[in-house]
Amino acid sequence: MSADLQAARWAERVESALERSLPAASQIPRRLHEAMRHAALGGGKRIRPRLVYATGHLLQADEAALDCAAVAIELIHAFSLVHDDLPAMDDDDLRRGRPTVHVAFDEATAILVGDALQALAFGELTRAPLPAETRIALVACLADASGSLGMCGGQQLDMDATGQTLALPALARLHAMKTGALIRAGVRMGALVGGADDALLARLDSFAADLGLAFQIRDDILDVEADAAQLGKTAGKDAAQDKSTYPSLVGLDGSKALLRELADKMKAALGPLGDRADALRVVAEFAIARAS
Amino acid sequence: MSADLQAARWAERVESALERSLPAASQIPRRLHEAMRHAALGGGKRIRPRLVYATGHLLQADEAALDCAAVAIELIHAFSLVHDDLPAMDDDDLRRGRPTVHVAFDEATAILVGDALQALAFGELTRAPLPAETRIALVACLADASGSLGMCGGQQLDMDATGQTLALPALARLHAMKTGALIRAGVRMGALVGGADDALLARLDSFAADLGLAFQIRDDILDVEADAAQLGKTAGKDAAQDKSTYPSLVGLDGSKALLRELADKMKAALGPLGDRADALRVVAEFAIARAS
Repeated sequence: MSADLQAARWAERVESALERSLPAASQIPRRLHEAMRHAALGGGKRIRPRLVYATGHLLQADEAALDCAAVAIELIHAFSLVHDDLPAMDDDDLRRGRPTVHVAFDEATAILVGDALQALAFGELTRAPLPAETRIALVACLADASGSLGMCGGQQLDMDATGQTLALPALARLHAMKTGALIRAGVRMGALVGGADDALLARLDSFAADLGLAFQIRDDILDVEADAAQLGKTAGKDAAQDKSTYPSLVGLDGSKALLRELADKMKAALGPLGDRADALRVVAEFAIARAS
Repeated sequence: MSADLQAARWAERVESALERSLPAASQIPRRLHEAMRHAALGGGKRIRPRLVYATGHLLQADEAALDCAAVAIELIHAFSLVHDDLPAMDDDDLRRGRPTVHVAFDEATAILVGDALQALAFGELTRAPLPAETRIALVACLADASGSLGMCGGQQLDMDATGQTLALPALARLHAMKTGALIRAGVRMGALVGGADDALLARLDSFAADLGLAFQIRDDILDVEADAAQLGKTAGKDAAQDKSTYPSLVGLDGSKALLRELADKMKAALGPLGDRADALRVVAEFAIARAS
């Protein structure tokens, strides 16, 4: 199967798995469940689940076991978007081309949606058809990546930095936490399900750290170059909010050069892993070249 | 040791365990960690951790293992208070006699504090000195109790019901989810750490369900009868927000009669468990008679 076809199949796979994992909209409290489904279903690039599947594929892991990890990480990502979009945070009305949760429902519901999606993510991992030791390792990985030393912490650093000019190392740290932590968790969770040894975990983690940074630099570039129709969300927000970005610190050309460097590093990291790593290579190429 | 003295010792125990679990305020992102500590340390009745310890004590469980469960459930409770207090939710300025997190810091930080405390709670459980099977059972219990079919769902039902008159069964369901789910989780987690069999789990769960309801009815009564200085939070909010409560549906006397019934049921459930259940009896008495 071509890597592209496989990616499409995995996107469908995680969509059905999310559908099964989320309570039905008819279940009480209906408004909350409807809003949770609005937040988590029907769209998104599903990059983090793709990383889980692609890394698991490298290790010939069972796809049913990968489903739980893929769902859990996407639920965490979805929760973070709902909260980031809130008026007190980024105040965004549009996400994936649709109204954000606090616009389609209300602010209080959006807060609860995020909270409930996070709880569901951890619950999902407990139900994975895997040994308890592996399930606990997955919970630990996802909790660490999501918390104050990972994604939430990066979001706080991002807010603290609004209106300030950061030095490049501080910007890199911010991104490593805000976006990178969950990208790395996707790769690590796929590797844990597949039973990777420590050497392979380390190699894959180095790849994932570069991937996370590439993803964020491309995001910064798109915010400058693309328009809202292309992005499915408001463009030009970084400049409007006076945020430090790679383009603002090293310029657009400098940012693109950095992306090319990261592409070379990722290629080298995956080099010894053979054809089975092709799905990961495709994600890396997408991170570098994506248009939305 | 008297049950009161033991309760005080457990309150100290969970305070130190929380202190160790929370990242230092000097650790980046400092503002987030300072706000997380503001939310979780230095106060509160610590009812849920007390339930973990008291139930574990019944089964002679290892206290170091109970610490992790006690910390995790208190972190979940603390996160829910931070989010419930937000302007879009209950809009409360005062909590445990101190400014709420969004007042002492800001709204965006308060949102992130809740999110990061939840992640930390699940991370804490993964580090418990217990077999992986038990740790996974604890994660599953806490995730189910916190999510859309537990605490978060109850909060949504509470919001949906504002300005409406609920029937008593609907109010009971709301409370069983909003407050009861986490009370029951406290008892169940203590029992899981202690290795309770299914029959004992069922007996304790029946006790805990009554305890949760008693706790909420007492809360409703206090909201009518007490003042802010006594409560450490704003009083009279239920009536001001036109919420259905036990006093509004069955009157103050009817509410107090219901509390007495629950007290008898709880006594009967603990009856066969001997002296080792005294700590649980004390919590039950406190739920019925507390003044704040």
